[in-house]
Amino acid sequence: MMLTLTDVYKSRCDNEAAIILRQDPVVYQGWKEVGPADLSQHQLARYAQKGFIVLKQLFSPEEVGRMLREVERLAHDPKLEGYDEVIAEPGGGEVRSVFMVHRLSPVLDRLARDIRLVNIARQILGSEVYIHQSRANRKPGFKGKEFYWHSDFETWHVEDGMPRMRAVSCSILLTDNDEHNGPLMIIPGSHMHYIRCVGETPGEHYKYSLRKQEYGVPDEASLRFLVDRGGIESMKAPAGSVVFFDCNAMHGSNSNITPRPRSNLFFVYNSVENTLGAPLHGLAPRPEFVATRSDFSPIEPVTPETVKSSA
Amino acid sequence: MMLTLTDVYKSRCDNEAAIILRQDPVVYQGWKEVGPADLSQHQLARYAQKGFIVLKQLFSPEEVGRMLREVERLAHDPKLEGYDEVIAEPGGGEVRSVFMVHRLSPVLDRLARDIRLVNIARQILGSEVYIHQSRANRKPGFKGKEFYWHSDFETWHVEDGMPRMRAVSCSILLTDNDEHNGPLMIIPGSHMHYIRCVGETPGEHYKYSLRKQEYGVPDEASLRFLVDRGGIESMKAPAGSVVFFDCNAMHGSNSNITPRPRSNLFFVYNSVENTLGAPLHGLAPRPEFVATRSDFSPIEPVTPETVKSSA
Repeated sequence: MMLTLTDVYKSRCDNEAAIILRQDPVVYQGWKEVGPADLSQHQLARYAQKGFIVLKQLFSPEEVGRMLREVERLAHDPKLEGYDEVIAEPGGGEVRSVFMVHRLSPVLDRLARDIRLVNIARQILGSEVYIHQSRANRKPGFKGKEFYWHSDFETWHVEDGMPRMRAVSCSILLTDNDEHNGPLMIIPGSHMHYIRCVGETPGEHYKYSLRKQEYGVPDEASLRFLVDRGGIESMKAPAGSVVFFDCNAMHGSNSNITPRPRSNLFFVYNSVENTLGAPLHGLAPRPEFVATRSDFSPIEPVTPETVKSSA
Repeated sequence: MMLTLTDVYKSRCDNEAAIILRQDPVVYQGWKEVGPADLSQHQLARYAQKGFIVLKQLFSPEEVGRMLREVERLAHDPKLEGYDEVIAEPGGGEVRSVFMVHRLSPVLDRLARDIRLVNIARQILGSEVYIHQSRANRKPGFKGKEFYWHSDFETWHVEDGMPRMRAVSCSILLTDNDEHNGPLMIIPGSHMHYIRCVGETPGEHYKYSLRKQEYGVPDEASLRFLVDRGGIESMKAPAGSVVFFDCNAMHGSNSNITPRPRSNLFFVYNSVENTLGAPLHGLAPRPEFVATRSDFSPIEPVTPETVKSSA
């Protein structure tokens, strides 16, 4: 699909914010294949309405233990020191995020292709899917910083040239998330509105934005509008739970001064019918580790032994 | 009472943190006078156990409206610009706190002496009381910063020479506090342990600590110990509610990226039998606006007309 001059989702073009009605479906029709953890029609309808769904304890404690150990291994792997994929907290020190974990780790590659996750993404997006981005987020105890409100799609559209709203984020909770340790907050219904942000985007913005967002920041009036309509919901759930949320859902999180870290894995599934074009405003494409361009071929899902045996 | 070399609550003396058992009662016996909003024996027992109590909507929406307008007036009063009492957010800009509000404002002076509050403080402390400190806290929406864990008593003991744990903080919620907008978090039961902090206190520390705490910071192992025992509770309650919490209760709050500000008023009642001595470590006394020294005489409570008529 071409981006044209009449792009409805243009953003960061001038000094005026705007609220644009979503022009795309939330749940796309047409996916027929059945998976072991599929959403019911009722769940799909709620996802369409709220822009997210929480699936409690989709993964067993043993599975979560393996994921967590693998993330910690990556975060402390001396071989990865200095890699672009490894992002430190503002001010340096602790590793905040590791990108492209499905390419850095065979264990997490298998997880990203787990049929339980992939088929839900295909149900929602109505097509085959591929991984647009993956990462592990480690919000440490005592000093985890807030992450301000944003729509991922706004960034992906402007900086990565993702044409339409046909991607879904999948967050796997690796630690218990409660009201105190800075859980993911989503504004229900916000995915139905696109907040056009003010200002321009400097070149190589991604180098800074992965630490601290300064461009593509929604204005306060628009955020008030969204919260007045939909309120705020925190994704409070035990480790092993999975949150699927729409690429345009407005989300953020507060800081975490509790002793309990808040770690999660994050896979972005994009429809193979929604692959990346050129970024807006003549920006150079961001590097592969934040936005896959080298391979848009459909994921081949895997069915773990435990899922097979319980089927 | 003299501070001696055997001070059990000494802190910031060396490089070792320590956890000391509380040596003082939480609820002191002996106060007989009856007030219109007194705590029941059951409530006092729960306060003694947890170190805090939330009284929902003790004040009417009209009363809260008056308080909020008065706080906003003070925060924007050009006459107070440059006053020590007025503390800006780190980085400047918004007014974060206004100290000594009961001396700057006749409206808030009456509130600090409101019989509903004063008699609860006297019930808890078992004696007449005076105001050790007062302030208005304004945690703005979108950008309110976290406030790290601390025991007020640790600071008051070290920096103000408050001899024993016989003071109670009273926080009046001026806006709705929910799980999302950075509510006060308290570790239940933490008031029974005194966390001795490491390090020294530089002179004029208060000038910085009111913005951002760097000394008198509890260590992570002790915080883990307290949270493992007591968990964490957020003071979620509608505007007009009042939280009384023990001077040694470990508390803090996360940031607030929601559009909803979190404002409160804060009065510290100290027992007239617990008046300030010399600060520890030869520190100079902090100024009057953070620690009253000029007048330890008991508060004369006032009974508002609305309370009289409903009695």
